[in-house]
Amino acid sequence: MQQFDSALRDAAATVEPRLSDILAREIDRGGPPRLIEAMRHAVLGGGKRFRPFLVLETAAVFGIAPDDAVDAAAAIECIHCYSLAHDDLPAMDNDELRRGQPTVWKAYGEWSAILVGDALQALAFELVSAPSAHKNADVRAALVLTLATASGACGMVGGQMLDLAASEASAAPSAISDITRLQSLKTGALIRAACDMGAIIGEASPRQRNAMLAYGEALGVAFQISDDLLDAEGSTENVGKATGKDAAAGKATLVSLLGVTAARKQLDDTVASAVNALSIFGPEADALRGAALFMGRRGR
Amino acid sequence: MQQFDSALRDAAATVEPRLSDILAREIDRGGPPRLIEAMRHAVLGGGKRFRPFLVLETAAVFGIAPDDAVDAAAAIECIHCYSLAHDDLPAMDNDELRRGQPTVWKAYGEWSAILVGDALQALAFELVSAPSAHKNADVRAALVLTLATASGACGMVGGQMLDLAASEASAAPSAISDITRLQSLKTGALIRAACDMGAIIGEASPRQRNAMLAYGEALGVAFQISDDLLDAEGSTENVGKATGKDAAAGKATLVSLLGVTAARKQLDDTVASAVNALSIFGPEADALRGAALFMGRRGR
Repeated sequence: MQQFDSALRDAAATVEPRLSDILAREIDRGGPPRLIEAMRHAVLGGGKRFRPFLVLETAAVFGIAPDDAVDAAAAIECIHCYSLAHDDLPAMDNDELRRGQPTVWKAYGEWSAILVGDALQALAFELVSAPSAHKNADVRAALVLTLATASGACGMVGGQMLDLAASEASAAPSAISDITRLQSLKTGALIRAACDMGAIIGEASPRQRNAMLAYGEALGVAFQISDDLLDAEGSTENVGKATGKDAAAGKATLVSLLGVTAARKQLDDTVASAVNALSIFGPEADALRGAALFMGRRGR
Repeated sequence: MQQFDSALRDAAATVEPRLSDILAREIDRGGPPRLIEAMRHAVLGGGKRFRPFLVLETAAVFGIAPDDAVDAAAAIECIHCYSLAHDDLPAMDNDELRRGQPTVWKAYGEWSAILVGDALQALAFELVSAPSAHKNADVRAALVLTLATASGACGMVGGQMLDLAASEASAAPSAISDITRLQSLKTGALIRAACDMGAIIGEASPRQRNAMLAYGEALGVAFQISDDLLDAEGSTENVGKATGKDAAAGKATLVSLLGVTAARKQLDDTVASAVNALSIFGPEADALRGAALFMGRRGR
């Protein structure tokens, strides 16, 4: 666990100065200062940097130094932050606060928040396609393909669509398969992509890349179940954000459908799958194992 | 002129079935049907396909067959259509009709239109990074870099930011340099990128690529001045859309600042620059020359 906590902090310490530099460069290149300032608000206002951690640590398994994976890590964080800026909009979740700060639309206005998200998405693909991301163009093109596929209609955006459509219809999905599909797209796709991007940068063998994908797949599910358990069981004080939101919103989760005991059992099984997927790697994958074990203990 | 008209129709006939196929494939790959249907509405509801024409014709100068440039052409059209879906939103230009059809938000709701734009942007980068776009990964990565840079904060999105900020402040830019900068970002960047993408696919020499960039730069300016002249002078009947909108909105354009005669002179000079930039090419560039000459005659 110690190793996961410190690796997560290290990842944040690696990616945040890079994100700050990248956004400062946008001003030098002629980007409108008001837009760049709002992009900084969206990106630099905190966050655990969990997806960058996964890119950096997956790449590290293949001996890649953090500096050689940092642009891919920054890119996936740009995608994550753009999705938050758009999800918070009045037409979507209508949230005014995030991490104790005003959301982008609340601070800069609605149309600015839409443009912030649009520009951050473009920036993500600029970052991974630029020669500075990796010397090998095959790697750069593969990074773009993985990130774009995971972000789009068959990934993150598709999941957000299913989530909003369910809320609008006041008909939360009641089948377990519908919920797992929604969550697999909305949050799972980007977590899986982060692990795949590290393997791509590491020029992993197909067997190694598949192992990382299997790990990322299980980790995404564990992340979601532990989040649902936290929401259902944790106290606001321990969790650091409002809990019981899902139940109040009438939102079906694996926890509401299966019950706490069965959900916890499924979480344990999923964590074991994630750890098991890494069995072909040695101690160089301990931070990734730690991330899976952390999900298993979260909310207890 | 005949050559431009027929080449523009050919480009539309090449890119539209490809866009339709790509969007149909998104359903097979698990994209939510309602999202894909709204994406189809955004992309397949008409349009001149001017940017795809530029990609296909620029590539053709280097002997590239339409089939080998069609994914790049489809990608830039996805970017253009996503920008229209977002620009039309109530929080932006609040337009209810486009090409005689309800805009995406009017037909599918606001949050769907936001997600449609987000998914189309991701799709564009997926298209140009996939091996099917080009066999050479250096070409694919360069296509992504050009398209992402032109779309983002220092390109199209930055231009939209400047435009909306000027409208909000009821202080239209009154310096010619401010207007040309806004237009160069908002519409010029993507037109220039289309020409660059054709040169990248054609694996043009640096001298040839610079010629195409100079052409694209001038063409973008000519496009904008001719559009402003049309708006100021054309009848609604001839133009096919409402005219006089800029003046009614108190929007400064080169025409309102320079007057019609000087704007027309600048248009002629810009068209000459565009044609001149192509002087290193032979008759294979006639459709591109025709596009520049068409801008010069538009609105007379």
